[in-house]
Parts: sequence; C-alpha cells; structure tokens
Amino acid sequence: MQSLAFSWHKQNQKISFVPTMGALHEGHLSLLREGRKTGDKLVLSIYVNPAQFAPTEDLAKYPRDTKGDLAKASDCRVDAVFFPSNEVMYPKGCQTYVEVANVTKGLCGASRPSHFRGVATVVLKLFNIVQPHVAIFGEKDYQQLITIQTMARDLNLPVEIKGMPTVREPDGLALSSRNAYLSKEERIAALSLSQSLKIAKEMAAAEKKDINEILESVKKAIEANGLTKTDYIKICDSETLEELTTLKSPARLLIAAFVGKTRLIDNCGI
Amino acid sequence: MQSLAFSWHKQNQKISFVPTMGALHEGHLSLLREGRKTGDKLVLSIYVNPAQFAPTEDLAKYPRDTKGDLAKASDCRVDAVFFPSNEVMYPKGCQTYVEVANVTKGLCGASRPSHFRGVATVVLKLFNIVQPHVAIFGEKDYQQLITIQTMARDLNLPVEIKGMPTVREPDGLALSSRNAYLSKEERIAALSLSQSLKIAKEMAAAEKKDINEILESVKKAIEANGLTKTDYIKICDSETLEELTTLKSPARLLIAAFVGKTRLIDNCGI
Repeated sequence: MQSLAFSWHKQNQKISFVPTMGALHEGHLSLLREGRKTGDKLVLSIYVNPAQFAPTEDLAKYPRDTKGDLAKASDCRVDAVFFPSNEVMYPKGCQTYVEVANVTKGLCGASRPSHFRGVATVVLKLFNIVQPHVAIFGEKDYQQLITIQTMARDLNLPVEIKGMPTVREPDGLALSSRNAYLSKEERIAALSLSQSLKIAKEMAAAEKKDINEILESVKKAIEANGLTKTDYIKICDSETLEELTTLKSPARLLIAAFVGKTRLIDNCGI
Repeated sequence: MQSLAFSWHKQNQKISFVPTMGALHEGHLSLLREGRKTGDKLVLSIYVNPAQFAPTEDLAKYPRDTKGDLAKASDCRVDAVFFPSNEVMYPKGCQTYVEVANVTKGLCGASRPSHFRGVATVVLKLFNIVQPHVAIFGEKDYQQLITIQTMARDLNLPVEIKGMPTVREPDGLALSSRNAYLSKEERIAALSLSQSLKIAKEMAAAEKKDINEILESVKKAIEANGLTKTDYIKICDSETLEELTTLKSPARLLIAAFVGKTRLIDNCGI
C-alpha cells in the first residue's frame, strides 16, 4: 500500500483516504463519495482496531461484512482497499502510542480512557501507510474528528482532515454500525437522541442561553422513553472541546446514551 | 521546509536528514558527511527542544553557536538548514505526544522520565516537516537511536533510521556538546568512561561472561578518579534494550556518569 501510494505521488495524483472499521453504511459512503470528488485516487481502509476497544467493549461482536463492504467500495469507485491483519498493524514488540491530551479527556474519553490513544495511533499508522493528501471523517464521531485534526496540526502532518455532516435515517437517527445491535423497541427509543438535539437547537435559537436549562431539557427528552439512559450531555467549544458555562459560538452539543445495552452518540452545532 | 521537501520528492531527489540541537562538533559532522553521501539533498535541523529537558535540566545553558553551526553546515554542503522557533514547533494549544513505551523505561529514561517522549515527539514532527528518506543519528545517544528506530517501525514511517559510530577525541572521550561544561580536571576524569568500556570489552573477549563481574569492574574504573559518580551501568540487548542477566549477542554496555555536575553518557557493543 505504501509503495503504491508513493508511485501515485510520483504521478502527481492526489490521494483521498477514508479510514473505517468496515460494516459500511450510508454514512461511510458519503465520505467515499466526497473522497471520490476531492482526490485523483481514493483509498478505503477497513480495520477493526483492537487498540481502541477496552477489554469490556464490543470488539468481538463488532459487525463485520467484508463481502458487502467490497461491493460498496466498488460502487464508490474506490482505487484501493487497505484491509490489514492485526499481525501487520501490531507486530510483536509494537510499543509506540500517540497521545492527544486535552481534547480526549472529557466526553467519550472520560468513560473510554484509552480509546482515543488507540484511535490516534492507528490513524497515524494508516496515514503513514496510505500517504494521503486528504482524509475524510464523519462528524458523527465528533470528538474523534477533533482528535485527528489536533494530532494532524500538532505533528505537522501534510494531510488535510475533512469532516463531513452526519448522515441520518429519514426519522433522524444518526447512522452507526452499532445501530445493528438495537431491538425493535430500542430502535424506536433511540430516536430520542436526535430529537433531543433538535430541542436544544430550538432553545438556543430562541435565545435561551442558560446552558444548564438546555442540558436539563435534553436529558429529559432522551430519558423520557424509559429505555434510554444518558452517559453524558455537554455543550463544548467546537474546536477545543472545552466545556462551556455560557453559550457562545462556535459551540457543539454532544451526547452519549445507552439504549438498552447499546451505547450510541450524537452531536450537533448549536 | 515542508513544501521545499515535497518539491524535491517530485524531482525524485532522495532527502537525507540530520536532526541536531546545534553546537555542532565532529560527531554531528560525521552524520552530515554520511548524509551527503546517501542523499541527493541534505537537510540539517538545529533546534534545542524544550520538551526533552526537565525543569531541573540544562536547557537555558545548553551551548548555542548558530554562526559556527551555519559555517560548518556550509562546509558539509548542506542544502537546507531548518532552524525553527519554539512558536513554530509548539504553538499555543499543542497537546500531542508520542510515547515509545518499553525501550524508554530504563537507562536514561529512569532518571529523565519525560525525556524520550520529548525526543520522539519532536523527531516525528521534524520528519513530517522535512519528509526525509533517510535520517541519521549518532550511536553516542544509543537509547535515543533505538527509540527512534522503534518509533519509525511501529508507526510505519517511510524513513530509514541510520545509526553512525560515536566519534571520539584522540584520547577516547566521546564527543558531546556537554563536554564544554567540563573543567580541566573534570575533562581528565571524564576519560574514565571510555576507558571503562575498553575494560568491559576486554573482559567479554576473554570469555568473562559473568555480567555482575563486568559491571563491578566498570564501576570501579569509572569512579577510581574520585571526581566521577556513576548514574547507571547496564548491559542490555542491543535492540530491545532489555537488561541482560547473562552475556549474549547482540549486547550493548551503556553507562551514564556525573563528572562533577555534568552528566555524560557512553556505550559500546560488547
């Protein structure tokens, strides 16, 4: 993959890159379509990265669909799929980690302490292998997007990090590979996440600048159905992810909630 | 620097890189001469990296000689000198660090806990800026060399890391910018470091495989002059830096000692 990438560089080909954990859905495909537009060559990686799962998390049952993924990649006119094994990514003796300090502390980082270290490390490795000019990530994983942007800036990476809007089901549910875990009832309950974002946006638009009031309303809306329990609800600076105490632009509302046993996240500008 | 590097890549020019903290001596110049031979373009960086100094260490008094360095760079036919400010290297909000875990734990890492994190981070940043094909480091800082090699392998960097033999004064003292701190008496006492390496080599050659016996002899030789106090003396696996309990190839003897207030290091294959 790396030597293919360098041969493309020599031919003045601009490389777009979409790193994923597979189980591709419309959200991923929107990234691939953007990549197809912005680059001469489009690379997709599929790798369920063990380093970003805690021992208690869903690594083993994380959905995998290689055949389906490859068909979708082909539909999106991907030039190369990088699909490495664990032995290739983390050979024996591997001991180097990338830590992005501040932006990974709160939100999902609070309950998943080594998650973003795993994300930053694998993404940097993938960047070094794929040598992209542009890499495209979804805003659905907003803290991940900010972590990668911060890493790219701090480490002087010659890669533009592009965030793309969250793709949603017609009823508003943010697309996620983990939606596959939801029962029928939970699928309905999960709607409260995106609905609560709407409520917050409306309150902010109506000049309700009391953050605690907004957060209270969001929590109520998420938990109203009885099946859903919030993990966190925060309003943060959109770039530094510092928690805000008074509402000011650019701000982002970020939420995580358990729907049954499935942990889902969502966010929006506010 | 980064766009100059990419323009060289487009012209199929191989870039050699020698990162330094300046105060160039013959040791650095041997790296530059090797770089001149191996690359079409040769880049020198001069940057006294605050992130690898602890608050108690000699950052402020670390020797600086920009004029002399530039003259030497010119003599070595360097194509570009990268000489950044702290503001360029660590702008406000900077928060990303590279940790190489195992090889940085012992030896100098034991008494300088965040030193190698600072080294790995700045070297990765410099690599991303200079985009070298080969980077050249001295074996004098052996743990640093292994740290960078480990990082390069683990992060899939497309950079060959080359180690070059330690350059010594005619009497054996390893060249170091910190030798400038030594008084006349200390300069004489400092000789015990390189002399002790010789003693260890001779013992190993004479099939004295008892590591403790070798270490004892080394310690005695270093401290005989009364001005010198050992920080550590270890025999380690040359690649993993794991401490050895029985002598076997490839092994490395590594020592650090205070000569007066100046901490010096030296090492050799054994």
